Amino acid sequence: MTGPALPASTVNRRIVLAARPHGEPNESHFRLEETRMPTAQQGEVLLRNRFLSLDPYMRGRMSAAKSYAEPVAIGDTMVGATVAEVVTSHHPDYRVGDSVVGFGGWQDFYTSNGNGLRKLDPQTAPVTTALGVLGMPGMTAYTGLLTIGRPKPGETVAVAAATGPVGSLVGQIAKLKGARAVGIAGGPKKCAYLTEHLGFDAAIDHRSESFADDLAAACPKGIDVYFENVGGAVFDAVLPLLNTFARLPVCGLVSGYSATDLPAGPDRIPLLMRAVLSKRLHLQGFIVWDFASQEAAFLDAVGGWLRDGRIRHREDIVDGLEAAPEAFAGLLKGRNFGKLIVKIA
Amino acid sequence: MTGPALPASTVNRRIVLAARPHGEPNESHFRLEETRMPTAQQGEVLLRNRFLSLDPYMRGRMSAAKSYAEPVAIGDTMVGATVAEVVTSHHPDYRVGDSVVGFGGWQDFYTSNGNGLRKLDPQTAPVTTALGVLGMPGMTAYTGLLTIGRPKPGETVAVAAATGPVGSLVGQIAKLKGARAVGIAGGPKKCAYLTEHLGFDAAIDHRSESFADDLAAACPKGIDVYFENVGGAVFDAVLPLLNTFARLPVCGLVSGYSATDLPAGPDRIPLLMRAVLSKRLHLQGFIVWDFASQEAAFLDAVGGWLRDGRIRHREDIVDGLEAAPEAFAGLLKGRNFGKLIVKIA
Repeated sequence: MTGPALPASTVNRRIVLAARPHGEPNESHFRLEETRMPTAQQGEVLLRNRFLSLDPYMRGRMSAAKSYAEPVAIGDTMVGATVAEVVTSHHPDYRVGDSVVGFGGWQDFYTSNGNGLRKLDPQTAPVTTALGVLGMPGMTAYTGLLTIGRPKPGETVAVAAATGPVGSLVGQIAKLKGARAVGIAGGPKKCAYLTEHLGFDAAIDHRSESFADDLAAACPKGIDVYFENVGGAVFDAVLPLLNTFARLPVCGLVSGYSATDLPAGPDRIPLLMRAVLSKRLHLQGFIVWDFASQEAAFLDAVGGWLRDGRIRHREDIVDGLEAAPEAFAGLLKGRNFGKLIVKIA
Repeated sequence: MTGPALPASTVNRRIVLAARPHGEPNESHFRLEETRMPTAQQGEVLLRNRFLSLDPYMRGRMSAAKSYAEPVAIGDTMVGATVAEVVTSHHPDYRVGDSVVGFGGWQDFYTSNGNGLRKLDPQTAPVTTALGVLGMPGMTAYTGLLTIGRPKPGETVAVAAATGPVGSLVGQIAKLKGARAVGIAGGPKKCAYLTEHLGFDAAIDHRSESFADDLAAACPKGIDVYFENVGGAVFDAVLPLLNTFARLPVCGLVSGYSATDLPAGPDRIPLLMRAVLSKRLHLQGFIVWDFASQEAAFLDAVGGWLRDGRIRHREDIVDGLEAAPEAFAGLLKGRNFGKLIVKIA
């Protein structure tokens, strides 16, 4: 920013994409800017972001390659879901003080005509749950597991990044459906949390040297549903354990998001395809909005389980918008413990 | 065989697995034997095989590795579907002269208690169709395409080994469902057959040096359904053309059945999984018996289309049981043109 400082009351701090990372992102790829606070026009609301969700998909938006969504342009505000409060309303459906969840981005303020906003009732559930267990990650777990994974009682469901907001719900819903839940996480602390607090049947530390053997031992009847969040070495350990007719909702591949090269050979595509054929595997990629029509059913089901204490969730809240870049870099390395949220001052 | 020659009228010639191939099979992996003709017991029929079906899956049975079926043991008769005639009947449902399709193997005679037999009416359709368009290959095409592929009008369906009994029906059913059919085959003669006789919209020669470019040009709107019969270089050319939400029934990988090593690196599993995620691909392996409950619907639908002249089929018939090994080796190299059948003398 150049020019004279703006009066504090009218400043919008925002974090923009400064450069596209080649490999792992770090703070140099972001820039904190101060701009003028936007103004709500007729039919719009002005929103102050209170909580920003940090999620692995954001790594994809930092790259130039078009995936299922357009990349963030250099110099543009980083995208992300936020819980915000209405500051000014020129929209009949919103009043000052209302809490909403929307796609507010890495910044203090934004305006909206109401499209993509959902009003929150802080009496029903803490507003931050709208970014995690009752938000996009929760709905990802719910729709991917039940629509593609379809666990049956007695089957084994394995999920990695299992203490994260998606994985933790995948395992808990699997249990509610009568399946055996095996979680994969990094380190003994997270593993203990899975079995002691979330009711997983087993938890395996992917950092252990005996990881593949440990996973096999924890899945004596093989794996019927593997909810894919991470790829890489975890997928390699899962593949030989998959049962005939196993289902693999492919939700994320976070271990490879910052990879700059393919791994060394041989090329194992024929090996994977042979497994698909001989085990009649069902692999299916999805993003949560493919199942947008299930949103009401999701909120109803998971909201109910949450109120009844049948599922638990965990948040990892970091303080201040300026802390977002470092927290995001840590997310891609599994440093968070629970749903990663930035509390915007 | 040792010992005195058997009287001709009581001899059963059979082809047994002599050795497990490492790589491509050839005649040295088979052995023609003469044994005593079996005898039908009470409740059984004695069947004389008239036509033997040769199919790519048989390569899998020659290997020691268990796939979805047990391997053929060394010295055992090679397995395979046959059209046979009842020679002796001690079973109330069968009369001498009845034609049946069953799993009779590479031999002249076998006995059966009726399990796995289906009676054929030679007035309705030539009996050899029970090994191809109205048999296992046809049902493979019908169930895989319609249950997993689910082509919609206007979509593009690509299939390799397109002049074979599975591929040719995949393309023709795709057309009947209003989709665009693109066939991949080896050589200009097969390609011409696809467009001129079977009504495919385009046919691409996978032996051409410009194969990948030709395929892209033939699929200007991408590929929505890829029915996977072959794997390898064809799959590599298809992958970048797949549209979002494309479906891939994985039915066979014949290009790799005799591979002894994986291809050189890099390891492209991450590349494939990234495509699965970002394009939300649906890959699903299957074998025809997974859809056994659809047999009556298949016979009804495809039988009707065949009678109405809405689909065509082609048979490649070789003469004599002793010709089966060489014909089978050629099948794996794409030397046949149409459904490969051995006429047993």
